[in-house]
Amino acid sequence: MNTQASHLVPVIQPREVPAALMDALKNRFSEQYSTALVVREQHGRDESSFEAPPPAAVVFAQSTQDVADAVKLASQFNVPVIPFGVGTSLEGHLLAVQGGISIDVSRMNQVLSINAEDLTVTVQAGVTRKQVNEAVKSTGLFFPIDPGADATLGGMSATRASGTNAVRYGTMRENVLALEVVTASGEVIRTGTRAKKSSAGYDLTRLLVGSEGTLGVITEVTVKLYPLPEAISAAICSFPSIEAAVRSTIQIIQLGIPIARVELIDGKTVRMVNAYAKLGLREEPLLLMEFHGSPASVKEQAESVQEIATEFGGNAFEWATTPEERTRLWTARHNAYFAAIQSKPGCRAISTDTCVPISRLADCLLDSVAEADASGIPYFLVGHVGDGNFHFGYLLDPSKPEEREIAEKLNHSLVARALRLEGTCTGEHGVGLHKMDFLVSETGNGAVDMMRSIKRALDPKNIMNPGKIFTL
Amino acid sequence: MNTQASHLVPVIQPREVPAALMDALKNRFSEQYSTALVVREQHGRDESSFEAPPPAAVVFAQSTQDVADAVKLASQFNVPVIPFGVGTSLEGHLLAVQGGISIDVSRMNQVLSINAEDLTVTVQAGVTRKQVNEAVKSTGLFFPIDPGADATLGGMSATRASGTNAVRYGTMRENVLALEVVTASGEVIRTGTRAKKSSAGYDLTRLLVGSEGTLGVITEVTVKLYPLPEAISAAICSFPSIEAAVRSTIQIIQLGIPIARVELIDGKTVRMVNAYAKLGLREEPLLLMEFHGSPASVKEQAESVQEIATEFGGNAFEWATTPEERTRLWTARHNAYFAAIQSKPGCRAISTDTCVPISRLADCLLDSVAEADASGIPYFLVGHVGDGNFHFGYLLDPSKPEEREIAEKLNHSLVARALRLEGTCTGEHGVGLHKMDFLVSETGNGAVDMMRSIKRALDPKNIMNPGKIFTL
Repeated sequence: MNTQASHLVPVIQPREVPAALMDALKNRFSEQYSTALVVREQHGRDESSFEAPPPAAVVFAQSTQDVADAVKLASQFNVPVIPFGVGTSLEGHLLAVQGGISIDVSRMNQVLSINAEDLTVTVQAGVTRKQVNEAVKSTGLFFPIDPGADATLGGMSATRASGTNAVRYGTMRENVLALEVVTASGEVIRTGTRAKKSSAGYDLTRLLVGSEGTLGVITEVTVKLYPLPEAISAAICSFPSIEAAVRSTIQIIQLGIPIARVELIDGKTVRMVNAYAKLGLREEPLLLMEFHGSPASVKEQAESVQEIATEFGGNAFEWATTPEERTRLWTARHNAYFAAIQSKPGCRAISTDTCVPISRLADCLLDSVAEADASGIPYFLVGHVGDGNFHFGYLLDPSKPEEREIAEKLNHSLVARALRLEGTCTGEHGVGLHKMDFLVSETGNGAVDMMRSIKRALDPKNIMNPGKIFTL
Repeated sequence: MNTQASHLVPVIQPREVPAALMDALKNRFSEQYSTALVVREQHGRDESSFEAPPPAAVVFAQSTQDVADAVKLASQFNVPVIPFGVGTSLEGHLLAVQGGISIDVSRMNQVLSINAEDLTVTVQAGVTRKQVNEAVKSTGLFFPIDPGADATLGGMSATRASGTNAVRYGTMRENVLALEVVTASGEVIRTGTRAKKSSAGYDLTRLLVGSEGTLGVITEVTVKLYPLPEAISAAICSFPSIEAAVRSTIQIIQLGIPIARVELIDGKTVRMVNAYAKLGLREEPLLLMEFHGSPASVKEQAESVQEIATEFGGNAFEWATTPEERTRLWTARHNAYFAAIQSKPGCRAISTDTCVPISRLADCLLDSVAEADASGIPYFLVGHVGDGNFHFGYLLDPSKPEEREIAEKLNHSLVARALRLEGTCTGEHGVGLHKMDFLVSETGNGAVDMMRSIKRALDPKNIMNPGKIFTL
């Protein structure tokens, strides 16, 4: 484990963006092109705690052809391109650390085809997950992947996102069937089909899912849909300790109960959420759960889970059965980040994202809580604990470098622990700028070299979101 | 669609295997090395209908180090290596079309660690799926992927295999968590971890799953396990027509009923199976189904399915509830291939493997049945219809080239139809030697060129099972 925090701050090595390229882009894109500082700045940051100079220009693509033309021009001048959806990355994916232009795909927001009979939908990359669900509402189907933010499907594919429903429905890895992608040379390719399975050659779809914009710009995404469960019920259960909540979760998973969501929120974070969302949740560690299925199956699942929770000292469930109550609960969960940010005015959060095999979850989490408590840094703690994935958000004052240092040390220590326990440094946020050293510690130089070889082969000029995942 | 059957027979371009390499291998591997013709011939064929000269030698690897050393020596002399498990490929993956040596991993048959609490198991590549299930039996867990043959997990990973349980449990794509792989330079790398999800860099695991030995030799595999269902029931239902059986299946899937297996066998094939396995199944199209879950959930699923089947004219279910009855049924299903082969003594089968979106299944299947019937070639027909995947096996007399020609024409026509219906040329068998042209028709030159670039980058000497998936 390399504990040198060499990527505490991103390495900034902007390449020159020649005036000739700017002129060519202006000619080709006119109104869809901007060099206004405010526009560039908005496209040069994300929800990470990093800063870098903004991109030199922003192209607002409205079609795959727009993306292809922008990439071709950039390629001609060896200039980086950085795809931009709605800017919700947590790992610095959108920062122009090597300069270049931002390709904003948020106007590529057409739902192209809903194939309800096949449980699939194909959308342009700028369509957000809420928009998908709105579009398919009348079919009785839904798209379950829910990372909290209303991210675009292009961005969610690029980071291999998941979130609260993954314990039952999987991540983008399992749910993307096919892609349209603009390659580094500006060519448009398609990967995958709408068939549910395939052994037709290399799995380019899954190579591109999670490639963080470094191998191509995703322009269309086909994902799986699921029948809306006949019955849904959500419940909250408070526990005397984080350990009790986690041990309950471990048992739920080991017994194979098909729970749809099981989220941990620790007592401190519940307090932040209460203050932010004007809720009166008991300020103890809690599990927020959801059950999907037939009425009989939901009842059966809930009874089994209640029995397990009781064994570990959990309180009686509080149920949320109406859609409104459920929405209120899940909104509160999703707002934990903002609630935490508001609890320390002016702060920024460094979010961790380790994921471990479920049997190691208690060990990993409890030691990390002890360490965070000892550090004195305020934090929030939430977790998709059914998957062994959890997030600390260390709240630091950006004007105090010593706080960042403490937070980074905590993160390093947490990742080292997760790797010792056979886990991963990132369950769903991606590597971006922040986890490059961790990636090497996790997979070894051999695997990262294989990634580099692929990158060099598919992007010989290193113009596709360079400086993310690894440096060349 | 290129309808030129340019890959009807494999292109044979053996490279020289220098005596110096043979000597070096003999020195390094002594008793684990053979050049006996019978051994080479056994390693130079599979269950496809192709023939090629056997490999020049066979190395029986007993460890990852053995594989690495064999690959390093082969690389030094630019000689191809072909990984061999138990030889059940259907697409010519094992044929030494460019010469070289076979690396037999079947002695790498250790179950390395069973992590019952995490629902994972790690095995050497030569462990077969039945061996996995035997090893984990006492834990109350099982490994569901079942391609019929008792294939090795290395081979199943390399072809992205699936089979009868995939409709509920997914394919090797969804079930492999981590790999150990020997690269083209003989280096040992690890991909993935035992954590359930990860966004740590490129998804090398899924790039290697389905790479058919062309990017590396898989030496260890970590897969997911599942709790043995509390209740299992299997049922047979006969239908008045293939269409009725298929339309029932489509509805089962569209309603989201979590059926564990739903297999179609057409009337002619039932007759072959009856003769082979001494069964008395009604000689009509039938669905062979299995339900997994709690007793209440299994009952609920079975009732819903029975209602659908009745609507389409299906007969009353015949139930198989004891493990012995179920085994008898599934053995009959898995033996359909051998039953068919026996029905035409001396014949070989050309097996198709298309997979289409479920809404297109009836169209694709019925037109293909009409075409096969009109051709006069005998065939069997079975299908993992819940996934939209089915197999015709055209039975041809190898001494009559005109029969192969008819069979190939049928296959071409079927694949063209499946591609028009947004499907894939191979659901689970892989591309191998037989589907290279189909792959281009399916994904386009752009995607295949991307695969070629990856191949060239990771195997610059083109020694890893060359001439499969595509030619360079």
